[in-house]
Amino acid sequence: MPLAHPFDDDKLKEECGIFGVIGASDAANFVALGLHALQHRGQEAGGIVSHDADQGFNSVRRFGYVRDNFTDQNVMKTLPGLLAIGHVRYSTTGSKGQTAIRDVQPFFGEFSMGGAAIAHNGNITNADALRRELIERGSIFQSSSDSECIIHLMARSLQRNIPERMEDALRRVEGAFSIVAMTRTKLIGVRDPLGVRPLVLGKVGDGWALSSETCALDIIGASFVREIKPGEMVVITEKGVESIFPFRPAKSRFCIFEHVYFSRPDSILGGRSVYETRREIGVELARETPVDADIVCPVPDSGTPAAIGYSQESGIPYAMGIIRNQYMGRTFIEPTEQIRNMGVRLKLNVNRALIKGKRIILVDDSVVRGTTSRKIKEMVLDAGAAEVHFRIASPPTAWPCFYGVDTPQREKLLAATMSEEEMRQHLGVDSLRFISLDGLYRAVGEANGRDPDAPAYCDACFSGEYPVEPADMISKGFELKPAAE
Amino acid sequence: MPLAHPFDDDKLKEECGIFGVIGASDAANFVALGLHALQHRGQEAGGIVSHDADQGFNSVRRFGYVRDNFTDQNVMKTLPGLLAIGHVRYSTTGSKGQTAIRDVQPFFGEFSMGGAAIAHNGNITNADALRRELIERGSIFQSSSDSECIIHLMARSLQRNIPERMEDALRRVEGAFSIVAMTRTKLIGVRDPLGVRPLVLGKVGDGWALSSETCALDIIGASFVREIKPGEMVVITEKGVESIFPFRPAKSRFCIFEHVYFSRPDSILGGRSVYETRREIGVELARETPVDADIVCPVPDSGTPAAIGYSQESGIPYAMGIIRNQYMGRTFIEPTEQIRNMGVRLKLNVNRALIKGKRIILVDDSVVRGTTSRKIKEMVLDAGAAEVHFRIASPPTAWPCFYGVDTPQREKLLAATMSEEEMRQHLGVDSLRFISLDGLYRAVGEANGRDPDAPAYCDACFSGEYPVEPADMISKGFELKPAAE
Amino acid sequence: MPLAHPFDDDKLKEECGIFGVIGASDAANFVALGLHALQHRGQEAGGIVSHDADQGFNSVRRFGYVRDNFTDQNVMKTLPGLLAIGHVRYSTTGSKGQTAIRDVQPFFGEFSMGGAAIAHNGNITNADALRRELIERGSIFQSSSDSECIIHLMARSLQRNIPERMEDALRRVEGAFSIVAMTRTKLIGVRDPLGVRPLVLGKVGDGWALSSETCALDIIGASFVREIKPGEMVVITEKGVESIFPFRPAKSRFCIFEHVYFSRPDSILGGRSVYETRREIGVELARETPVDADIVCPVPDSGTPAAIGYSQESGIPYAMGIIRNQYMGRTFIEPTEQIRNMGVRLKLNVNRALIKGKRIILVDDSVVRGTTSRKIKEMVLDAGAAEVHFRIASPPTAWPCFYGVDTPQREKLLAATMSEEEMRQHLGVDSLRFISLDGLYRAVGEANGRDPDAPAYCDACFSGEYPVEPADMISKGFELKPAAE
Amino acid sequence: MPLAHPFDDDKLKEECGIFGVIGASDAANFVALGLHALQHRGQEAGGIVSHDADQGFNSVRRFGYVRDNFTDQNVMKTLPGLLAIGHVRYSTTGSKGQTAIRDVQPFFGEFSMGGAAIAHNGNITNADALRRELIERGSIFQSSSDSECIIHLMARSLQRNIPERMEDALRRVEGAFSIVAMTRTKLIGVRDPLGVRPLVLGKVGDGWALSSETCALDIIGASFVREIKPGEMVVITEKGVESIFPFRPAKSRFCIFEHVYFSRPDSILGGRSVYETRREIGVELARETPVDADIVCPVPDSGTPAAIGYSQESGIPYAMGIIRNQYMGRTFIEPTEQIRNMGVRLKLNVNRALIKGKRIILVDDSVVRGTTSRKIKEMVLDAGAAEVHFRIASPPTAWPCFYGVDTPQREKLLAATMSEEEMRQHLGVDSLRFISLDGLYRAVGEANGRDPDAPAYCDACFSGEYPVEPADMISKGFELKPAAE
Repeated sequence: MPLAHPFDDDKLKEECGIFGVIGASDAANFVALGLHALQHRGQEAGGIVSHDADQGFNSVRRFGYVRDNFTDQNVMKTLPGLLAIGHVRYSTTGSKGQTAIRDVQPFFGEFSMGGAAIAHNGNITNADALRRELIERGSIFQSSSDSECIIHLMARSLQRNIPERMEDALRRVEGAFSIVAMTRTKLIGVRDPLGVRPLVLGKVGDGWALSSETCALDIIGASFVREIKPGEMVVITEKGVESIFPFRPAKSRFCIFEHVYFSRPDSILGGRSVYETRREIGVELARETPVDADIVCPVPDSGTPAAIGYSQESGIPYAMGIIRNQYMGRTFIEPTEQIRNMGVRLKLNVNRALIKGKRIILVDDSVVRGTTSRKIKEMVLDAGAAEVHFRIASPPTAWPCFYGVDTPQREKLLAATMSEEEMRQHLGVDSLRFISLDGLYRAVGEANGRDPDAPAYCDACFSGEYPVEPADMISKGFELKPAAE
Repeated sequence: MPLAHPFDDDKLKEECGIFGVIGASDAANFVALGLHALQHRGQEAGGIVSHDADQGFNSVRRFGYVRDNFTDQNVMKTLPGLLAIGHVRYSTTGSKGQTAIRDVQPFFGEFSMGGAAIAHNGNITNADALRRELIERGSIFQSSSDSECIIHLMARSLQRNIPERMEDALRRVEGAFSIVAMTRTKLIGVRDPLGVRPLVLGKVGDGWALSSETCALDIIGASFVREIKPGEMVVITEKGVESIFPFRPAKSRFCIFEHVYFSRPDSILGGRSVYETRREIGVELARETPVDADIVCPVPDSGTPAAIGYSQESGIPYAMGIIRNQYMGRTFIEPTEQIRNMGVRLKLNVNRALIKGKRIILVDDSVVRGTTSRKIKEMVLDAGAAEVHFRIASPPTAWPCFYGVDTPQREKLLAATMSEEEMRQHLGVDSLRFISLDGLYRAVGEANGRDPDAPAYCDACFSGEYPVEPADMISKGFELKPAAE
Repeated sequence: MPLAHPFDDDKLKEECGIFGVIGASDAANFVALGLHALQHRGQEAGGIVSHDADQGFNSVRRFGYVRDNFTDQNVMKTLPGLLAIGHVRYSTTGSKGQTAIRDVQPFFGEFSMGGAAIAHNGNITNADALRRELIERGSIFQSSSDSECIIHLMARSLQRNIPERMEDALRRVEGAFSIVAMTRTKLIGVRDPLGVRPLVLGKVGDGWALSSETCALDIIGASFVREIKPGEMVVITEKGVESIFPFRPAKSRFCIFEHVYFSRPDSILGGRSVYETRREIGVELARETPVDADIVCPVPDSGTPAAIGYSQESGIPYAMGIIRNQYMGRTFIEPTEQIRNMGVRLKLNVNRALIKGKRIILVDDSVVRGTTSRKIKEMVLDAGAAEVHFRIASPPTAWPCFYGVDTPQREKLLAATMSEEEMRQHLGVDSLRFISLDGLYRAVGEANGRDPDAPAYCDACFSGEYPVEPADMISKGFELKPAAE
Repeated sequence: MPLAHPFDDDKLKEECGIFGVIGASDAANFVALGLHALQHRGQEAGGIVSHDADQGFNSVRRFGYVRDNFTDQNVMKTLPGLLAIGHVRYSTTGSKGQTAIRDVQPFFGEFSMGGAAIAHNGNITNADALRRELIERGSIFQSSSDSECIIHLMARSLQRNIPERMEDALRRVEGAFSIVAMTRTKLIGVRDPLGVRPLVLGKVGDGWALSSETCALDIIGASFVREIKPGEMVVITEKGVESIFPFRPAKSRFCIFEHVYFSRPDSILGGRSVYETRREIGVELARETPVDADIVCPVPDSGTPAAIGYSQESGIPYAMGIIRNQYMGRTFIEPTEQIRNMGVRLKLNVNRALIKGKRIILVDDSVVRGTTSRKIKEMVLDAGAAEVHFRIASPPTAWPCFYGVDTPQREKLLAATMSEEEMRQHLGVDSLRFISLDGLYRAVGEANGRDPDAPAYCDACFSGEYPVEPADMISKGFELKPAAE
């Protein structure tokens, strides 16, 4: 079972996508489709829990793609009922290997008043402390996942019904969370008070759906109703959607990187297609970092919208200078040394006849470790490019994320240890420029840029300003940015 | 084992990609990489044969992707040696089901003077007659593949060495063929006299490579030397490349659809990147079929280069109005009815917030049955597009191909039974226009368009003029276009 | 995954075998061998947990045979360490299907003072009540197994070290249990106060082993030290074996059916080989139920020792009249209707040329539903036997077992609803006789037969006298035998 | 895929079982059952070919047990029709590894007059020479099996119908062969002129069956009609059974080892159950080689009938001193070193409490390499036996078989290099005695023992007298026993 892609370690990775449906026959099939549309948010494993009046709760959890695990009729008919939730995940901090299937969500717990299943996108920043406390009182953990704390806290709540047990539990929890949960009769959605991770509500026939992104509503033919609000809990039954605000109010801090990279370009965030926002980032980038060149090429596929915007703003022709191999999957199982060494060439190839002799602007979404960027530059120069200019559609990524995104340790982030000029030399390109943090805020719709006193987004990966203190990490030795910096 | 993609029946499919290497240690690893780069030419199955002085010939043939079958070290170390060839194939006319692994190439035969393996791209148009004749004389066929005739003809040749046996055999064969073959010491490449299917020569270190396309030379770091000429046989040994022309000379008729769709955009055909040719087709298409609109959107991914060209020539902005799901594979195993009905929505989604209220030009490479085009149109209108204009980067596909391409029967081809206006009504769009055959010839570099007396390409799928008589098909009742038409 | 053998529903089934080793390098390999030797006690699934100073606890749990799951080097090297325990199980009362891997033991729990794993043979008769109570207090169960209660009771114990937590837990538990458990440094064995299920201690090199039966000591070359006593807990560390008796003393009631059928014939119980005891049962049976006949044939393989004894006592020649197919496994996956109908013929065949015209005594170990007995009788008559006499090496099985044996509901037991003569007619044989309960007691070494006031064994399946009240079953409506009966 | 059992190299192995049915609906299901009953004749792989009027020929060939491969309804429904044949095989001289599935029979060939499939039990002693000749003439072999020669000879025959082509082919072939073959309308059975390997005819409903042994007729409820005669060909159609004798007449030489070991004890050979013959061998052995002892124990399972006979003749009690693990399969995949070293202990265990202090007679069917015998002796002594006496139910095996049985090279046969006393010392037992060749002949029904001028059986493995010259082996250097010896 391949647990990590050997050639894809140079991106930040969203760790989860969540989806739920109530009031639709064969709800699990809709959930499977929704998870397929959210596969970009987690490719390691997926799970679905459904509930049927006759057969109770059923669950299937598997490593691998949704399309491989949740389309077989023999599997799907084990998941009957009008109510189902599901989860896709990227490898998390959980243990690897034999027992890791235990870490695949949704998690299920049977309480004295009935059972519940939950699927969680985000990260609980005080999970270690909670876990220690719960074990001391006799809870037995089955996974290494931070999310399992929630179900144990719910089991120990003195409240009688499950939404109230969940309120109890989530008030003990710190960090970022969007949650889709279900009981025998209710579909429940929650976002943390800052609304760091996304969650949207849709209407499908007589029923309802909850999803990380709108693109997954499209695939099942659901209409987009609205975003769940930061700090909101919705409890959906046959009678409709009830809205509760169980937490202390706080200013919203949605993750700005969802706009830059995580969300799918055909999803809608803040009333605009993510594609349009990214094209706008490219426009802004062209204004901030112009350069004389022959063609603008995206690093496929994530750099494409910004490259289109850069081309349109600059007037320099857009061209496909780098071609992605469509048949590159995650499944290079124990590749030979020779194949491992091919690295990025298995995935990308330069359009040699096009590139030769030209001055190239390469537009990419971000630079994390810089390893892929170096290899792409080499391929482009090897094909005879006259000049190579990197333009990056986000500011330098200098800080790790602790809110549900897989980031390298801080010292592995290129921007944490080098200046922009040092990075340019390290990558060996003619120029390297990033969009400014203000420019990025303008592109996502904040006309005045970033308000340093009350930023509209969580941008900790760029700014080092963490809206929720990462308690577990600090107790493990992580050092916050000095206040004076 | 999924033998056919349930949602992908609306494209012509190249049936094969071939690759061979001599003089490189662990040649089979290079072949695996080459086949990975040629995966677009055949996704059903693949095979590699290698030869090692100590261990003789070894072979692995498997259903599925190269990346899944030929990267495991345990598999690859069973394929040692300095000499190897490989083949990827799309489902052919061969039998489906249990025994179909027998139809997976390369084919191997042991002759009295030693063994040989061959991999064939193309189609033998007199295979049925040859097969009957060979069986009558006591040959036992192990596959249902037309290509197996070649190895039996070689076995019965009275020539002593294998290249000469192959000449003997190929002189009996009609149709289209590019072949990569190997003996214990030689790598052999052949193209049929018309050169219908591609084959190129590369240099890798001290050794040599043969490949269907140049993109597969890039992936192993080989340099592109030249195309094998129509009617040429090259016999490559340690001493170098020997060139022979065993067939009666004929005018070249390379497949024009390789330029339109089959070849990868980063391959080089006729000295120009295929991407550039396709962009040029878009430019030509914009000149021939202008229309007033807000944005130009490709049908991903094959329509992208022509859409870029159309936008650049017309000045109408290029935009990603349709987004492809990157996690759509071939492996929807026995999907539920509900999922099967989703059809194209599993693969494509409309960028709703972008499309709404706009007049859209959709650029696609071809229209075969028209089923996918109808569904795309529905999705785009459903998202609120004001107008939909289809622009097609090839002339109407009105005739089946008998030279190694999987095409529906003639009556299933939309253009075989409808006029352009009938097709427009059938698809339900505001306008539908195809590039002219002359326009296509101009875009591929024939400044004067198509010479009707001596066309430079095989364009039978558009023109119904078959450069090699499809003998087996005629005996099965296929009617050629009347000469007077 | 075949979860039940379609042709084997006519035997009582032991539900578990347990094995543990401390102080041997690669202890898990020894455990795998021990479980292989105990496979007759449970074929559905197996699991091993090991502990290594560097790598902590590791676990592998799988459906299927030990020989298929726990011999692969790649698997076994994930189970390092000097300390390991394992479990094989037959399908229990737990839920079937997708999630049933959760029900495969050993179970593991992490407590505040460190983790422990336990493997349980037996059945907890008050598990339902305990489970409800634990859930009410916030415990989350991961399986449907009664054994999981023990680990939750341990987690909630206020004792600090694990053996004392286990004492706490087991004092709350009613029913039959032999347990092998482990912490990071200790191997622990326990038998319930009545000693219903077996457990033995062995010495292997400098280390120790615990096993359900002595045959599993033989396979690893361990010497048999002694049986663990009813009500005894042994805590084994590097320093040796400590013996504790934490429960209220009680008179021993070992399961008499272990002598009749469950244990392997090469195991030692009470100082005598089980084979010899079974041969002695045959001798006793011949004395009690003589009949004039030509040959004595065992129903293979479980009737063989008693048939040998019967032949020796009666002087009627022993012969193999029924031959078992050695290649019959458990894995007839979804057999065709035709094959399912073959039933017992797939497993057994009559030695036609031998049987023809003869008067046959068939010796079997027990009659449960009688379905197999009827089919065997038909085969034997069909082959031309002159007379068929069934002799059964146990008394009529009239009551279900609630102490860790899989028995049909009472109404499905032939002897629960029919007299001996009615059974004879139902089976359609010339005579049918069972050994008496007193005869059975004599054969297992009680010279005076059964003491009705204080029976030396648990014989509830024959007598209906349950030494531990089956509380959960009674609350589900099971009716005990009236005291006056 | 485990291609050889690591612990089972000390027996001669029958290489094949064959079975065919005509005139029964779903004939392939019957064939699957028949092959299951013949599994002892070959466990490595199996194949079935069926013919249906609508769907033509279909074939499934797989590694592993019949019960695992040919019971799944999804597989069996791909094998429709009233006519089917099948084959099970032990690893043959064919190549191992990746391509070995090509060596799994039945083989199929399409001829100009229609196709045929054949399944072969035996060995062609001039296969190498035939193969060279056929390749020279242009035949392409797909397997490394000697049996494939037959199908190529048939393909080249100038006869028009298939039975006559088969006659043509078999007249060119030397060696031992029992064959079951099929065309679209005929089931064909053949035995070589000496009748070395068995083949029987059965009647099942309105149809017919051919089988290696009668036990496979029993499993499908077929009645045993008669043995096919040496040199006979039967051609079975709807109209009945036609008998032909195409070969030059010869004296029958049936394999005597079929009586000793290969055939199942419930099969009928020469009108008597094989079990009875083996019991008779035990009787004869007791007369020839008496010894004073306490118990007679079989080496399970093959020594059991002879041990019963030995006990009955000698009056020494029969006892199960060695117990076989029923869960030992063939599937110890890449076992760990520790497990590999356990060797025979995984399969057999000594009944320690029974054996201790006793004088034991161990009855086994044969001694090949002697490796297992040594290990058994060690286990028995280790358990405290006072004396160990080996009695062997066949003469010393001193010569390899070239007629379809897997034997080690001559120098690996213990009896080829040692006298009986040397063997006794090598095994380290108190006495070792074999039945005489005359005694064996008497037990199989030749009252006067072996006629040295015209032996009634093939006994080359004991006598070194080969009834058919092993031409290929001689050309590879094998030396026949000097005529004078």
